[in-house]
Amino acid sequence: MEHDAILMVDASEQNADLYYATRFWAPDPFIFVQTREAKLLATTDLELDRAKAEARVDRVLRLVDYEERAKQKGLKEPSFVDILVELLEEVGAKRLLVPGDFAIQYADPLRERGFHLTFKRSPFFEERLVKTEEEIVSIEETQRWIERGCDEAVRMIWESEVHDGLLYYEGKVLTSERVRQAIHRTFLEGECVAHRTIVAGGEDAVDPHHIGSGPLRSNQAIVLDLFPRSARTGYFADMTRTVVKGKAPDPLKRMYEAVLAAQERGIALVRDGADGRAVHQEVAAVLEKAGFETKHEQGRMQGFFHGTGHGVGLEIHEPPRISLKGSVLQKGNVVTVEPGLYYSGIGGIRIEDMVVVEAAGCRNLTRYPKQLELD
Amino acid sequence: MEHDAILMVDASEQNADLYYATRFWAPDPFIFVQTREAKLLATTDLELDRAKAEARVDRVLRLVDYEERAKQKGLKEPSFVDILVELLEEVGAKRLLVPGDFAIQYADPLRERGFHLTFKRSPFFEERLVKTEEEIVSIEETQRWIERGCDEAVRMIWESEVHDGLLYYEGKVLTSERVRQAIHRTFLEGECVAHRTIVAGGEDAVDPHHIGSGPLRSNQAIVLDLFPRSARTGYFADMTRTVVKGKAPDPLKRMYEAVLAAQERGIALVRDGADGRAVHQEVAAVLEKAGFETKHEQGRMQGFFHGTGHGVGLEIHEPPRISLKGSVLQKGNVVTVEPGLYYSGIGGIRIEDMVVVEAAGCRNLTRYPKQLELD
Repeated sequence: MEHDAILMVDASEQNADLYYATRFWAPDPFIFVQTREAKLLATTDLELDRAKAEARVDRVLRLVDYEERAKQKGLKEPSFVDILVELLEEVGAKRLLVPGDFAIQYADPLRERGFHLTFKRSPFFEERLVKTEEEIVSIEETQRWIERGCDEAVRMIWESEVHDGLLYYEGKVLTSERVRQAIHRTFLEGECVAHRTIVAGGEDAVDPHHIGSGPLRSNQAIVLDLFPRSARTGYFADMTRTVVKGKAPDPLKRMYEAVLAAQERGIALVRDGADGRAVHQEVAAVLEKAGFETKHEQGRMQGFFHGTGHGVGLEIHEPPRISLKGSVLQKGNVVTVEPGLYYSGIGGIRIEDMVVVEAAGCRNLTRYPKQLELD
Repeated sequence: MEHDAILMVDASEQNADLYYATRFWAPDPFIFVQTREAKLLATTDLELDRAKAEARVDRVLRLVDYEERAKQKGLKEPSFVDILVELLEEVGAKRLLVPGDFAIQYADPLRERGFHLTFKRSPFFEERLVKTEEEIVSIEETQRWIERGCDEAVRMIWESEVHDGLLYYEGKVLTSERVRQAIHRTFLEGECVAHRTIVAGGEDAVDPHHIGSGPLRSNQAIVLDLFPRSARTGYFADMTRTVVKGKAPDPLKRMYEAVLAAQERGIALVRDGADGRAVHQEVAAVLEKAGFETKHEQGRMQGFFHGTGHGVGLEIHEPPRISLKGSVLQKGNVVTVEPGLYYSGIGGIRIEDMVVVEAAGCRNLTRYPKQLELD
């Protein structure tokens, strides 16, 4: 079905497509309509001035004007949908293309009022996945702050003393929480905001999304996975390193070497036109050939049981995927390559870089060194 | 229509109802189904262990098990909806109640497959708006960190020296950015995460959601609006203070006094059973009687053009509203009371406290003093 207009209703703070379309950052929902002629944004008076100054649209409209019209038609207390209908009628949009996450609370009443809605799954704006030079610069800026944060974490672990297997930094037990706080403090200097930065040692790291808690120990793997967002540009970056304070036991060392080899293989395969699924399968094959099995055992996953990578941009996880659900990689995509291995009783290893897909290969945006043991 | 089950599909990091239902914090979408018998959560293997350890549900299911079943039925590459259908058929849920923000990309195909969906607008779980003692303690903990952050900001402004109308702190020009960073640094110590904390001086503050930028000046109003979220508990808090370094010009002083009087009136009216709309209208009347007009002039809003307050909890803006769209306040609601006045060429004033609604009044959770001039 041909559509007359694109319609979005959401808070751009949690909708990357809407932020991409408008470059207007708002904590509360607003309306975006794109017809063949113009991009329109409609908001409450609270956001009006800011929208006029910041939004990259053709016109900023006042919701109260449309509320007024609905009232003039006899509606005593117009609902949000009543107001939306006034606006859509004004621009002559009857057949609407909406994003896949468009809310049922607007879709159902609009359809009852005779509007035709079709949805398009993410990425709504496919061009969002092909980064411009300006976007890559923004992602790299965030990446530089990741590296400063990681360096701070590595320094604390490195400089720690070990007593009875526990790490002590500046005289106090070094915990996941202390390291996380130091990382976040570094991010602040660069206006980067982070949630749930992973500083996970020992068994915590066997669960890839466990953020880690409590004292860190020597001779165990500590996974550092950093993925802040720049509050200034909105762009994320993503990097993981795994380190051991002291000596890595042999099984961990072998896991590390296998993960590193798998990652190098993955990075070597990333290029314009490569199939994300095939890249993932080759990465998984490197681990399997090295003798590392993936299985569901005693109610837990063991081995390599997540995707190899994902797109990074205005979302931390966005297409394309380098996984079983993978799609074809395109020049200008920014993707992670992050194989891992996780075994109960041994620990977790993950190594993650972020690269830009190029015509004949990729360019690694990550500069931070890879070193397992910190003596 | 009677429903067999509640269905939600979202990332709980950006869906307060889903986090409330499961207490499981996840950055990527998962499935939640609540039948008359049990609460179920279905996730990828990546989140499986963590979901089992953290989610307050009866059973955690593996998405791959349902994918496997779909494949056994002959689907070569089951879609997410195919997998969801397997799960819903297993629990015998045909008539589904979903939240208002349920995505059209799941609603439409489920309906095509014969499921009946009805939606319920926010608050999906009405009990979420009536805070338990434990929840109030969490909100107060966040509030204490707001006060520490505000104190740091006020101290920097207070201790600044003034040269040619500009504030200098520790020898360097004091900017909105520096103050914001100091506030965020304080929040970190309490594991509180903040986006777009407002430190807006002069004309910036005339736009209530402008976060402020550049050098701060003496004898102008500086709005400090702090609303971090605890990364530990998930609960927000919210407070605004307005300060002047030096002497407030008379118009600002009169605005401040009127806003303070309006706020006191608002707080006095908050109680179980009070109508949020009526409270807002009385607050607005105090400002109007003091001679402060609200109007749309030269393309900008002037006066008092936002709501008096909103609920605070797992969302920074949640029902009930104390505004033109206001609803009845209930014992146990936590709401803000935050009138403001904004005039081009003069500046912005906002004063915000956060209170718990009680049977015969309210309890103010805010301890921070209100003082306009910092000499």
